[in-house]
Amino acid sequence: MKINPFSSPLLADLYQFTMLQSYLEQGMQETAVFELFIRKLPPGRNFMVAAGLEQVLDFLENLQFSAEELSWLATRFRPPLIDYLERFHFIGDVHAMPEGTLFFPNEPILRITAPLPQAQLIESRIINILHFETLIASKAARSVLVAPGKLLVDFGMRRAHGAEAALLAARASYLAGFSGSATVLAGALYGIPLYGTMAHAYIQAHADESMAFEHFARSNPNNVVLLIDTYDTEAAAGKVVELAKRLQTEHIHIKGVRLDSGDLAAHAHNVRRILDQGGLQSTAIFASGNLDEYRLQTLLGSGAPIDGFGIGTALDVSIDAPALDCAYKLQEYAGKARRKRSEGKATWPGRKQVYRYYAPQGEMSHDVVALEDSDPCEGEPLLVPMMLAGQRIHRTRPLQEIRQQTLARYVRLPESLTELETTTHYPVTISPALQALAKQLDDEAMTH
Amino acid sequence: MKINPFSSPLLADLYQFTMLQSYLEQGMQETAVFELFIRKLPPGRNFMVAAGLEQVLDFLENLQFSAEELSWLATRFRPPLIDYLERFHFIGDVHAMPEGTLFFPNEPILRITAPLPQAQLIESRIINILHFETLIASKAARSVLVAPGKLLVDFGMRRAHGAEAALLAARASYLAGFSGSATVLAGALYGIPLYGTMAHAYIQAHADESMAFEHFARSNPNNVVLLIDTYDTEAAAGKVVELAKRLQTEHIHIKGVRLDSGDLAAHAHNVRRILDQGGLQSTAIFASGNLDEYRLQTLLGSGAPIDGFGIGTALDVSIDAPALDCAYKLQEYAGKARRKRSEGKATWPGRKQVYRYYAPQGEMSHDVVALEDSDPCEGEPLLVPMMLAGQRIHRTRPLQEIRQQTLARYVRLPESLTELETTTHYPVTISPALQALAKQLDDEAMTH
Repeated sequence: MKINPFSSPLLADLYQFTMLQSYLEQGMQETAVFELFIRKLPPGRNFMVAAGLEQVLDFLENLQFSAEELSWLATRFRPPLIDYLERFHFIGDVHAMPEGTLFFPNEPILRITAPLPQAQLIESRIINILHFETLIASKAARSVLVAPGKLLVDFGMRRAHGAEAALLAARASYLAGFSGSATVLAGALYGIPLYGTMAHAYIQAHADESMAFEHFARSNPNNVVLLIDTYDTEAAAGKVVELAKRLQTEHIHIKGVRLDSGDLAAHAHNVRRILDQGGLQSTAIFASGNLDEYRLQTLLGSGAPIDGFGIGTALDVSIDAPALDCAYKLQEYAGKARRKRSEGKATWPGRKQVYRYYAPQGEMSHDVVALEDSDPCEGEPLLVPMMLAGQRIHRTRPLQEIRQQTLARYVRLPESLTELETTTHYPVTISPALQALAKQLDDEAMTH
Repeated sequence: MKINPFSSPLLADLYQFTMLQSYLEQGMQETAVFELFIRKLPPGRNFMVAAGLEQVLDFLENLQFSAEELSWLATRFRPPLIDYLERFHFIGDVHAMPEGTLFFPNEPILRITAPLPQAQLIESRIINILHFETLIASKAARSVLVAPGKLLVDFGMRRAHGAEAALLAARASYLAGFSGSATVLAGALYGIPLYGTMAHAYIQAHADESMAFEHFARSNPNNVVLLIDTYDTEAAAGKVVELAKRLQTEHIHIKGVRLDSGDLAAHAHNVRRILDQGGLQSTAIFASGNLDEYRLQTLLGSGAPIDGFGIGTALDVSIDAPALDCAYKLQEYAGKARRKRSEGKATWPGRKQVYRYYAPQGEMSHDVVALEDSDPCEGEPLLVPMMLAGQRIHRTRPLQEIRQQTLARYVRLPESLTELETTTHYPVTISPALQALAKQLDDEAMTH
């Protein structure tokens, strides 16, 4: 079957189609409002970084069913649903926090306003995109905060969960402040700066390590970063110094060396000394190998002379928190606010806005979650219109610009929220009118 | 740029291309042998289930560079590399464990034999596929083993890491013994059985819960599974009994109810009693909501009358072990065995085979990792030829058949390996000839 798994509308849960069949038969096509939010922060996170909106808008703009997809669906669902899907294009509104916005639990980061079957159909894929990019951007932010001024590169493609995860992890980590990625496709599709050196196999395939270094330098004279831990790290650093002398007349500069195993701090000190004594003060030391923000903090705290880090698996799978407790919930239908009251999973009803307040010096002080219409607040409204009647209302922002704005937002975080090992609760309050609405709906249900 | 991110050969690390440029310039195109293996089991796993080979073979068969991809590369690399890539098609051999094979650390599950630049180019994407599907199949196996005879459904699409992860998690969990998935695309592309009910939004959008149930039943008369925890679970079970009476004359049967929150065991007991007293003994109880193999074991151990489970996030992100310590390493080049000796990451050199031995009753007893040529063993060889000179040598096996064979393999696992909370080391030994080769290479390096 000719189906593009990246964009197929069959990337949905079966219940979306069974519900749609019923909504259509019951004529339930009035306006629904769904909001996406996280219920709580995962352990070890003090804030989240919103990411993935660009892919969501792209998905909504291009959502349509191919002939193959319709004929497959026709073997399982009745003609009225198939006819509806054949003519489907998204006509709803999207309000959302811009990518790179810092946010907290119970704050909607995306609101969909659309006919009920439309808003229901898109549920799973919207969550799938926003959940993952937000997860990775929020993980990446922690490394950015503990290693200011260092080169940080996403090395995680191989252990990311499939093709799209690899690509979007590069995007989300760059958006959150990383310097770039090793994933070539992320460079080609998103213009993300690319970094790369060589694998151990490159060294091993040569009979001699020095010769491997020299071959690599001559073939890639503008990007000479040599992997020096295949056999003996310090001995290899000595070979790098010798090579630099041989290459001097050709004006080939050895940009850096990479350490990938053993005691990185100890090796970095030794290698720095060997390089400096050999006149290679400007050759940088780059480290990789099971790194995460905690190891970065330890390495930099100990004064290890490391200039850049490749962070792979821990970043691309968000290893200490590989999923978020997020939900996409119906908050209003046909003009009436709705509330789910399942045990431990009750939601705040109605169309909401999030207002952010700042201290006089510019630092974030607190947020208020309020009803959009009846509950005016003076803070900065975080949800803004992104798509109206199925049309995007802003041009795609350059990723570099989003990244700069994200970095600027970190500066306004209260300092305790930037620390890795402190759990700090940023104050988010529910407005009185919203609390009253929730109570009113509960009371109505009791007397129903 | 028109690039399909699922199949683009730019889904690679930058260093693959920098190394290729150098290999080509140095004429290093002799035969290389790379093997993929895991270094150690993650905590809480006693064995792994190999999965993803089908997607790897598909990737290798179709690997080629489009005009857009070549022109992007041409802005960064020199003409000889671009010419080479323009003509690229994979001509190597693949030996691998069939999907569903149970395996252990240090056992190669895939071996690539190809000209060095070819074997190097494919590294990252091959790991990306095999790592993820193996991760998920190995996680899924644990639920299958603790819940024999129960309906197990993958519910994880929304929190899987992107589109491909959602799709391949459905495939890998089915291959490992799950009953099916909620992900429609997995049904359309792989023929995986689909299951689905309704969301809370469906109930909330109706003014009345009973009416929601009735509408759903009439719209989906052959698949009436009703979500009963939106407001009050036991009250909703009573409404299901009333509805069943109204639907009786129309021969619409209520197949099941779904619990998604609260104390699932307590609700299941209450609901079972209400359904039975209402004459609905054949209506099944299906549970979901933050489930994993540990909660299944507890629920079933306590005698909770639950017939099936939807397992979502914990499965699709392999939440307790979201990554494996796996590697794809050069073991031979130009006829000579190679060994990486990096601290803590040394490899077993040469082309290897894994032999499995069984006890007389059929139970697995131990494995031996040996050199393929010089080290004949009598056990069952686990690596078999899958592709020769770039051509697949077997037809794609039906997924249902792979699943049946996987289930049959579980029966031969030593019982201690099937327990969730016991860490048991299955014996894997390194053959004397392989140990001798490793020592010989180390000795040569010392005197070098």
